[in-house]
Amino acid sequence: MPPTPAALTPVRELRVGVFGAGQLGRMLGLAALRMGIEVRFLDTHESGATRGVGETLIGDWRDPALLRRFMTGCSALTVENEWAPIEIAAPLAEREFGLAIHPGPQVLARIGDKLIQKQHAERNGIPLGPYRGCRDLAAAEEAAAEFGYPVLVKRRRGSYDGYGNATAHDATELRAAFEALGDHDGVLVEGFVRFARELAVLVARGREGDSVVYPVAHTEQQGHRCAAVEVPARIDADASARAQALGSKVAAAFEIVGVCAVELFELPGGQLLFNELAPRPHNSGHFTIEACRTSQFENHLRAVLGWPLGDPGLVAPAAVMVNLLGEREGSVDTAALARALAIPGVAVHLYGKREVRPRRKMGHVTAIGDDLDQLRGAAEAAAAAIRL
Amino acid sequence: MPPTPAALTPVRELRVGVFGAGQLGRMLGLAALRMGIEVRFLDTHESGATRGVGETLIGDWRDPALLRRFMTGCSALTVENEWAPIEIAAPLAEREFGLAIHPGPQVLARIGDKLIQKQHAERNGIPLGPYRGCRDLAAAEEAAAEFGYPVLVKRRRGSYDGYGNATAHDATELRAAFEALGDHDGVLVEGFVRFARELAVLVARGREGDSVVYPVAHTEQQGHRCAAVEVPARIDADASARAQALGSKVAAAFEIVGVCAVELFELPGGQLLFNELAPRPHNSGHFTIEACRTSQFENHLRAVLGWPLGDPGLVAPAAVMVNLLGEREGSVDTAALARALAIPGVAVHLYGKREVRPRRKMGHVTAIGDDLDQLRGAAEAAAAAIRL
Repeated sequence: MPPTPAALTPVRELRVGVFGAGQLGRMLGLAALRMGIEVRFLDTHESGATRGVGETLIGDWRDPALLRRFMTGCSALTVENEWAPIEIAAPLAEREFGLAIHPGPQVLARIGDKLIQKQHAERNGIPLGPYRGCRDLAAAEEAAAEFGYPVLVKRRRGSYDGYGNATAHDATELRAAFEALGDHDGVLVEGFVRFARELAVLVARGREGDSVVYPVAHTEQQGHRCAAVEVPARIDADASARAQALGSKVAAAFEIVGVCAVELFELPGGQLLFNELAPRPHNSGHFTIEACRTSQFENHLRAVLGWPLGDPGLVAPAAVMVNLLGEREGSVDTAALARALAIPGVAVHLYGKREVRPRRKMGHVTAIGDDLDQLRGAAEAAAAAIRL
Repeated sequence: MPPTPAALTPVRELRVGVFGAGQLGRMLGLAALRMGIEVRFLDTHESGATRGVGETLIGDWRDPALLRRFMTGCSALTVENEWAPIEIAAPLAEREFGLAIHPGPQVLARIGDKLIQKQHAERNGIPLGPYRGCRDLAAAEEAAAEFGYPVLVKRRRGSYDGYGNATAHDATELRAAFEALGDHDGVLVEGFVRFARELAVLVARGREGDSVVYPVAHTEQQGHRCAAVEVPARIDADASARAQALGSKVAAAFEIVGVCAVELFELPGGQLLFNELAPRPHNSGHFTIEACRTSQFENHLRAVLGWPLGDPGLVAPAAVMVNLLGEREGSVDTAALARALAIPGVAVHLYGKREVRPRRKMGHVTAIGDDLDQLRGAAEAAAAAIRL
């Protein structure tokens, strides 16, 4: 047995407070714990995703008493959910704890409303497809007539992963979409961009504006939701450099601190258009956990703590990530999990959510290696074996 | 905001119970959580290393009520501390929960006593240096006379990391060592092996005897404690293959289930001798977190859960790990941590221990890349910057 301890010196604790407690928080927490940083989450409901990873506080995140409990002992504050109402928390954090939240409320306000996000991008010279804020159905009909059907109709706030979005192919569908999604500010109507590919560029940007850019990812959506990601995207070096430059420009224009995912459309002629921005680690960057020297989660932490950013380079020539979406009723089948783990070179991530809901993000798998087609096959096979 | 949840289906929980709650438990927990497996730890004292990673129960691990609480809801049980007195827990686990502990009490008993470990290895045809169990000082003096000074004197049970070990260069030192380390069974005396290198071979072995072997590591000790690990060891392919074969043979001879670290001496002529065995993930295998397709912690979990073992191959040509040992009084200097993180390609692990003690293992750094010398420089620089 070890000898009697001598000369014990207390270690100063490092703790990061995270608004939100979903799978992004879980993975952020795992990256933090590796570096000896504790995490504390705050959310309005318990999904199970952060259970066993740091401490999770559940309640009203506008409640000053709860906010104080959440912030006590934190060295930095950040968000994993860009709709956390940090406009209340931020002044309290500043005044009572001397802490800024990264990204801050101004940054989130500019992004959380998709119309304002588009307008801010446009003002900063970022190329983007046709869009219009439409306060009433007549305005939406006018926009659709100008852009041509189909159009995308989006709730201005709170839409994600296909929730709050609809594609309208004609006036009847447009009316239905407007009625379902419109609020007092109306909706955002976008012309349908006939893209060749959807790309995502992850950028980590520090407090001083320093940044690193990850290799360009090709994202594949099914039903407005990320299904698979291939890295590097199968585009030439010039397109890749242009995408990374555009990603950096967007991150700087929005004054991001932390990691952000810049989603782009690549048109058949090679032109790149900005689609949208997520001001936090993102599904399109989960591949970085195994495939990069510094994961998006570690770099997010480094950025919000004011630390130097880490190398975003790949450790293998290629990576494929496939999401595990809730598919069925029934619990996780551990025999199926074992079959998935029998596929060589596949890393399995499950988020610990307590309940499966059809199409809910339950986990993901990542394969790294030399050949995208081979990796795609392995990742798809593992995902198919698990079936949640 | 998301729509009202529909068709929620509860997810079956997977939980692994771990005897011990030190840094190995912490890293095991982080690997488990990635795969959606919860962890629960049981230890007699709280080091802080598993704080924020699963649930930690503190108490007497011979107490049936506490053992029941610990085991409830677990799918598998394992150890991160081979001295956990599982000879009491194991029958209770079997009888009341239908669970085996992997590795089991017979395996641990054979390893926990270093004399019995040597004898078992010898009986299984495993080459090893001169050793003798010495019940009294006279027997130790006789062994030393036969082997020649210096000799190593080891407490038979509970010695690790230099605790419980001493090198005796003469009869005076031998007497002092015997008095300090001897118990009712006496001590283990070993002839000093003039090795060229110390090597470690990590083997993951499943419940059915299936196994995978990691690339051979070169371990460097300072004061009987692991200071640095280089992978692959700078030995030729033949020596590497022989070391891996010997590692597999040792793991099989001891009927390991889980990961074990087989420590070897390479003699100047290339001959390999077995030194000792750790029946769990090991400091010499921390490099596997960043450097291998499947970490030692994930493979340990896969083995104890009865799942297929993962690919132990390297993702980069080389890796160097350097331990962060407690050096001084004072708390962790986060500015120093930031300086370490500025060194490209270095992953920093801190174990969250609440108190620094001189020479205590507080964390480690791993660098992966192409060139061992360059990586060694980077890892040493990062370790020097952090200084705990």
